[in-house]
Amino acid sequence: MEMQQLAQRAKAAAIHLAAAGTVEKNRALEEIARALESRSADILSANARDIERSRQEHLAAPLLKRLRFDENKIMEACQGLQSLIRLPDPVGRTLSALELDQGLELYKVSCPIGVIGVIFESRPDALVQISSLCLKSGNAVLLKGGSEAAETNRVLADVITDAGNRAGMPTGWLALLETREDVAGMLSLDTAIDLIVPRGSNAFVRHIMSHTNIPVLGHADGICHVFVDRDADPDMAVRIAVDSKCQYVAVCNAAETLLVHQDIAGEFLPKIQQALEAKGVAIRGCERTAAAIDCRTATAEDWSTEYLDLILSVRVVDSLEAAVDHINTYGSGHTDVIVTGGTGRGTWFMNHVDSADVFYNCSSRFSDGFRFGLGAEVGISTNKIHARGPVGMEGLLIYQWRLMGHGHIVADYSGRNHRPFTHRKLDTPFPS
Amino acid sequence: MEMQQLAQRAKAAAIHLAAAGTVEKNRALEEIARALESRSADILSANARDIERSRQEHLAAPLLKRLRFDENKIMEACQGLQSLIRLPDPVGRTLSALELDQGLELYKVSCPIGVIGVIFESRPDALVQISSLCLKSGNAVLLKGGSEAAETNRVLADVITDAGNRAGMPTGWLALLETREDVAGMLSLDTAIDLIVPRGSNAFVRHIMSHTNIPVLGHADGICHVFVDRDADPDMAVRIAVDSKCQYVAVCNAAETLLVHQDIAGEFLPKIQQALEAKGVAIRGCERTAAAIDCRTATAEDWSTEYLDLILSVRVVDSLEAAVDHINTYGSGHTDVIVTGGTGRGTWFMNHVDSADVFYNCSSRFSDGFRFGLGAEVGISTNKIHARGPVGMEGLLIYQWRLMGHGHIVADYSGRNHRPFTHRKLDTPFPS
Repeated sequence: MEMQQLAQRAKAAAIHLAAAGTVEKNRALEEIARALESRSADILSANARDIERSRQEHLAAPLLKRLRFDENKIMEACQGLQSLIRLPDPVGRTLSALELDQGLELYKVSCPIGVIGVIFESRPDALVQISSLCLKSGNAVLLKGGSEAAETNRVLADVITDAGNRAGMPTGWLALLETREDVAGMLSLDTAIDLIVPRGSNAFVRHIMSHTNIPVLGHADGICHVFVDRDADPDMAVRIAVDSKCQYVAVCNAAETLLVHQDIAGEFLPKIQQALEAKGVAIRGCERTAAAIDCRTATAEDWSTEYLDLILSVRVVDSLEAAVDHINTYGSGHTDVIVTGGTGRGTWFMNHVDSADVFYNCSSRFSDGFRFGLGAEVGISTNKIHARGPVGMEGLLIYQWRLMGHGHIVADYSGRNHRPFTHRKLDTPFPS
Repeated sequence: MEMQQLAQRAKAAAIHLAAAGTVEKNRALEEIARALESRSADILSANARDIERSRQEHLAAPLLKRLRFDENKIMEACQGLQSLIRLPDPVGRTLSALELDQGLELYKVSCPIGVIGVIFESRPDALVQISSLCLKSGNAVLLKGGSEAAETNRVLADVITDAGNRAGMPTGWLALLETREDVAGMLSLDTAIDLIVPRGSNAFVRHIMSHTNIPVLGHADGICHVFVDRDADPDMAVRIAVDSKCQYVAVCNAAETLLVHQDIAGEFLPKIQQALEAKGVAIRGCERTAAAIDCRTATAEDWSTEYLDLILSVRVVDSLEAAVDHINTYGSGHTDVIVTGGTGRGTWFMNHVDSADVFYNCSSRFSDGFRFGLGAEVGISTNKIHARGPVGMEGLLIYQWRLMGHGHIVADYSGRNHRPFTHRKLDTPFPS
């Protein structure tokens, strides 16, 4: 089917999916979980073909590992579906209610965004996770996965579509795109598609942003900082810096730069050097750091590099203000940490660092949808509008204003002797 | 000053403005109100020069009227500032709080977006309104007004900047752009500017969207509908249709199309024709309408035309479903009304119409920030993300995640024997 037709079908489906009840949507999620199990043989053999082909094409080992979708992954996907079923329906919640005048009541009610276009990496589990999140939140979804996982994705999309149809979901609420031309087509359909969620590298996200008028919910690099303030507990600071850097190096919420207040640098730098060395981390230090401990000297480029590796740049700063300036200059607005002795300087740091996540005396690695209790994660956003930081299902929602009247007209509220508005807050939900 | 420098200065100012206290910001708003009064002579003479020049350039009378900024307008602007001062500070509000584990508490706290670029129409009052909204919400602002109002805008920006400086606001939080090249420059500075708010025609907004990677908060056409259902009270339906069309025709929340259920068309069409004729409204009817009453026949183009004039297209539809289909096909997602006998069909309509504002038994003209009790209006958005419908100050805000720990690290929460998260909801605000 042509891209435009797919998008139009998705748009029509989105209208019905937006109005679907909680019971219906949960029944569809149940049906999807059952179908994943009953068709596991098809899924496993498609995945084996993807892996075999990718191996012949010399795909790197870490990517081959991400590509694997085995019985364990199917079980995990089903568990994910069960926990999604248990979450409350995010659609139809009354966000605010206001009486404008007697018998004229305004409700702000949560609703799905509409049609979401998702471009995701090689892991096929992402397909199940994203499509089920979209279903629960009432959104139609167009999916484009990595070409390495083409056969697995095709079977998974097929299984989910069939299960959804059996459970009465509107036809076309999910569609799988296969080609790069489809992606280009999708990016041009700004009248049918409401939001693009690209999951991948920073360069990839920026490329998508430059090629579409559709809003993009994407994350940039994670150049995260840990700032060790003058009165930090040095042992706590070591523990937090090591965890932020090493607990999992290849992720966007890992620290890339350590800033150290000059008053504590003499005591702290040898300690952190020892701890990082034990973990195999190479330090690239500013001149003052390099004068205090044995390390390679950092270049200007280091301050804006996301290593995703066992490397940490270290800079000694004159003050709290200088640390904040460094972060706002070189950071990526993702996650930044202060380790300090009191909440006064901690709050000042949080008030002045322009990042999605600002942490006080804890590791940058907590920046994550699951740890934040969001239930499920759409991604981590460095956008400054709509959704910021770890984004749960609420990132797939917007609201609609619903005004309930009894024949009210604006002429009565304008001109001489006009009726006043009461603008009285109500505690009642939308009367559905 | 170069555009890039202005934007960098605004970005630096935004960091400080985000952390400014309520008292400081309100003092600055007071100072601006005082300055508008004390420098009113300068303002009035600049405006007189703008009007004189525009008259010589044969600017149309309605635009000349919008351009006028007289003593009355200065008074209104000062009243607007006073009511803004009375509004609670929208920055620093705790939106949610969650204990992740003992001593590890997560707060979602409202904060400004950062640097807002606003391109506005000829009315100089917009400059005062927008810049004061940005100040109260802690955002820096780059403003580009209509060239007709160049001299008035220059004096107003000068008055506001001086007053802000006297009250201790950070230098560069407001800048006025003068040329189209500046606008083009602004649209390219996606690392310094966080949101563009274009106020103007649909074509203009779409042009802006096509020329920037910066998120755009803009409204499209207002092709608003009134649907008169089969069991509507005919007199109420006439009153609502007339108010929606005629109360003020040149605005985006005025109705452009009337949909009539076939079961009530025979009774209703002659009534509404009479009422609309009395107001000088010309009807363009579908074939069934034209068979029932004397009117010009509508073409397909009429269904997607925003007349902003005393013209109304009228279509007879078979059912509630057909009305909803028409609206979702030809509407612009702005404001759509159902007039019906009971809330059952009303709720069905609201659940299936994909528009920012869906109204039951009241006029489309209520779609407005002041009437909605938002205090101040940034604009009306037909976006599907961030902010939808009438947008108040909350459209200029986002949030930041603040995690307060006591040395917590992620290693303790992963692997064998890991600590569980408590994810316990808290009722406490962020401890500032």
